[in-house]
Amino acid sequence: MKKIAVLGAATTKFGELWGISPRSLLKEAVTEALSESNLSLKDIDALFVGNMLSGILGGQEHLGAFVAEELGVNIPAFKIEGACASGGLAVHAGTLSIVSDVYQKVLVVGVEKMTDHKPEETAAALMGAGSDEERTAGATFPSLYALIARAHMKNFGTTEEQMAAVSVKNHFHASLNGKAHFAFPITVTQVLKSPYIASPLKLLDCSPISDGAAAVILSAESYALKHKGKIKPVWITASAVATDSLGLAQRKDLTSLNSAIMAAKKAYRQAGLSPADIDVAEVHDCFSIAEIIAMEDLGFFKKGEAARNIAAGKTRLGQKLVVNTSGGLKASGHPVGATGVKQIVEITHQLQGAAGKKQVLGAKIGLAHNVGGTGATAVIHILQSF
Amino acid sequence: MKKIAVLGAATTKFGELWGISPRSLLKEAVTEALSESNLSLKDIDALFVGNMLSGILGGQEHLGAFVAEELGVNIPAFKIEGACASGGLAVHAGTLSIVSDVYQKVLVVGVEKMTDHKPEETAAALMGAGSDEERTAGATFPSLYALIARAHMKNFGTTEEQMAAVSVKNHFHASLNGKAHFAFPITVTQVLKSPYIASPLKLLDCSPISDGAAAVILSAESYALKHKGKIKPVWITASAVATDSLGLAQRKDLTSLNSAIMAAKKAYRQAGLSPADIDVAEVHDCFSIAEIIAMEDLGFFKKGEAARNIAAGKTRLGQKLVVNTSGGLKASGHPVGATGVKQIVEITHQLQGAAGKKQVLGAKIGLAHNVGGTGATAVIHILQSF
Repeated sequence: MKKIAVLGAATTKFGELWGISPRSLLKEAVTEALSESNLSLKDIDALFVGNMLSGILGGQEHLGAFVAEELGVNIPAFKIEGACASGGLAVHAGTLSIVSDVYQKVLVVGVEKMTDHKPEETAAALMGAGSDEERTAGATFPSLYALIARAHMKNFGTTEEQMAAVSVKNHFHASLNGKAHFAFPITVTQVLKSPYIASPLKLLDCSPISDGAAAVILSAESYALKHKGKIKPVWITASAVATDSLGLAQRKDLTSLNSAIMAAKKAYRQAGLSPADIDVAEVHDCFSIAEIIAMEDLGFFKKGEAARNIAAGKTRLGQKLVVNTSGGLKASGHPVGATGVKQIVEITHQLQGAAGKKQVLGAKIGLAHNVGGTGATAVIHILQSF
Repeated sequence: MKKIAVLGAATTKFGELWGISPRSLLKEAVTEALSESNLSLKDIDALFVGNMLSGILGGQEHLGAFVAEELGVNIPAFKIEGACASGGLAVHAGTLSIVSDVYQKVLVVGVEKMTDHKPEETAAALMGAGSDEERTAGATFPSLYALIARAHMKNFGTTEEQMAAVSVKNHFHASLNGKAHFAFPITVTQVLKSPYIASPLKLLDCSPISDGAAAVILSAESYALKHKGKIKPVWITASAVATDSLGLAQRKDLTSLNSAIMAAKKAYRQAGLSPADIDVAEVHDCFSIAEIIAMEDLGFFKKGEAARNIAAGKTRLGQKLVVNTSGGLKASGHPVGATGVKQIVEITHQLQGAAGKKQVLGAKIGLAHNVGGTGATAVIHILQSF
C-alpha cells in the first residue's frame, strides 16, 4: 500500500458529557486536528464519519451530511458503520480514498453520544453489533465476552487476577491522560472486589459507556512531504480489515478472533514488519479478556502466554512494547464510533513524541487494533515515523 | 477518474415482501449479479453495503459483517449510510476502493427492509435523514417536499397536472418492469383524484415504502478488458458526490438542490460530457416534484421548463432522453438503501441492451442521480458502453 500521511490528530475529552452536544464534540476534535495539520476546512476534499448509534439512539441517519453542515462545507460525506469498529473502518475508507487520488486531503471523524440514554437502552442498542440469535436470546456484550473469558480460563489457565491486571495497567496509563474518562489509578484488589457483571467479568473488567469524538486529517505522501516544515506527519503504512461471523455460536474457537488474526497478517505484510517491531499499540480492550486475546492474536505473545506477561507488567509504560497508553477503552473510555479514530490519534501523538506524560520514549512504530462486536469486524493499522 | 467496470448487476423484486428476510433479499441480488459477472464470492475483495435503517428499524448495526456472514466470506465489509443516498454513496465508495487498487473486485449491495413496521414508525425513522429542527417540529418528507413543490409552483407556474404526469410516466415504465413495486399504469386523473398527503402532493405523487435489494460487481478496467469474452461490462466514467444543509430552512432557494447541481457539474467534467449526451437517466423521484427539479438541476431542461416538457412526454420511452425506465422510486419502489444501487443496475442493463421491454434503443450513455433527504446528499454517476 502507498504510505498515507496523518497530518493532524485530536480527540475531545471522553466521558459522561451531558452538557455537550454531538455537534460540539465533533467540531472540537476537527478544529484541533485541522490546526495541527495547518489546514483549514476549505482544503478538505471529503469527510468520513465513524459512528454506530446515531440512528438507534439519536434518530439521525444522515450523519455525513450532518457533520458537513456543522462544519459548513459541501464536500462528499459518508457515515461508515461497523459497530465498535466504525472508527477504524472510517480510517480505512479514508486511506482508500487518498490512495485512489480522487481525494487528496480527507477528514476522518469518529463520534458517539451514548450517555444521554438510560444505560439499559444503550446496552440494548449496542447489541446491534451482535447476531440475531444473541440479540433475541437477550445476550449482552459482557455476557458474550464472559463466555470468551471462561473458554480462555479453561484452555490456558488464565485467572481473574491476570484479567484484573489489564484494567489496572490501563487505568495507570489513563491517569496520565487528561482526556481520559477515568483518569485515575485502580488496584487489582479493587477490580477483584468490584461486582460481577457477567462472571468472570466484573465491573472493573468492563469498558464504560462514553461520549466523545476524535479526528484525523489524512493526505497523500506528496502533499505531506511538500509541507513538512509546518507539520509533523506520521505515516500509515498498513491498513487492513477482515470479518468473521457476527455470533459466537458460529466460531470454532472462542479464545481468539479470527478476523483480528487475518487483518493483522495482512497489515504486517503491507508494512513489511513483524510483531517484534512494534513499540506502542492501542488495542481494543472492551473487556479485560479482550486485551489478553488481542495480544495473542497480534502475535505479541504466544497463545496462552499473554495474561501472565501482562500481569507481570510487560506491556506497561517503560517496557519495550507499551499497550494502551491512552488508557484503552477501559479507562480512556469507549464512545464506540470514536474509539477506532482515537486509537490512531494516540499512536500519531506517540510517534510525534507529543504524548505528554504517557510518552513512550523513542516510539517509531505503532499499531492500532479496533474490533466490532465480538470480532465480526477487525481493523488493523500500522503507523510509523520516519 | 479512471474508468470502473460494472461486471454484473441485479435487483430483487421490490415491494411489500413480508415473507422474505433481508438476508434472502441481499443473497438473491448478490447471487444474480455474481452470475452475470462470471465471478464467485471467493473472487470478491471487499464489500460495501448501502443501507439507512437497519439500526433504527432492525436493531442491527453491524451490517457489513452481517452481509459478509450471510455470504460466507471474511472480506472487508462496510455499511455506508447517507440516508436515501446510501446506495449511491456505497457505489462511490466502491469505485474509490477500485481506483485505489487496494481492492480489485468489489461487491456493492444496497438493501432495505421497511414494510415490516407500522408505516408511521417507518415514516418517523425516515426523518433521520432530516434536520433536528424538522424532526422535532414533526415534519415528514412529504411535507418538506410539499414546501418545495409550492415554491416551484409559485416561481415557475408548475401545476399539479404536470406533477401528476411524472407519476404517470414512471408507472408506464414500471408496467414494463416485472420487478417493480407497482408494475401497472395510472392516469393523470387517478393521480389528481388521489388523496392529499401534504398539499399539493397527493398519494400518487409519492414514492412508496418498499423492501428490496440491488447489487453490482465492480472491477478495474484491466480485469474487465481481460475477461471481455465472458462478460458484458459497462463503464462508470464519473462518480461524484456533494452535500448541502440537512434542513430546508438553511437554503437560499427551495426550487433546486445545490448538492445535485454541484455533483452533476463534477460528474459531467469527469466524463467529459454534457447533459445533451445522456440517452437514459435514473433520477431520484421520491416525489413527483423531485423529478421535475432533478431534470433542471441536471441541465436537461432550463430552469422552470422541466414540468411542461415532462408533461409533453419528452422523457418517456421512445424519446431522445428517457428518464426512469425502471419506474423510478415512484413506481419501481424505494427501499432506501437499495435505490441508489438499483439505479446503477437499471442503467447497466440499459447500456448492455438487456433492459427487456423497457429498453432504450441504442442507449450508450446513462446517468444516475441519487439524493439523500431533501438534498443534503447528492450522488451522480455516469455510465457508458464503448
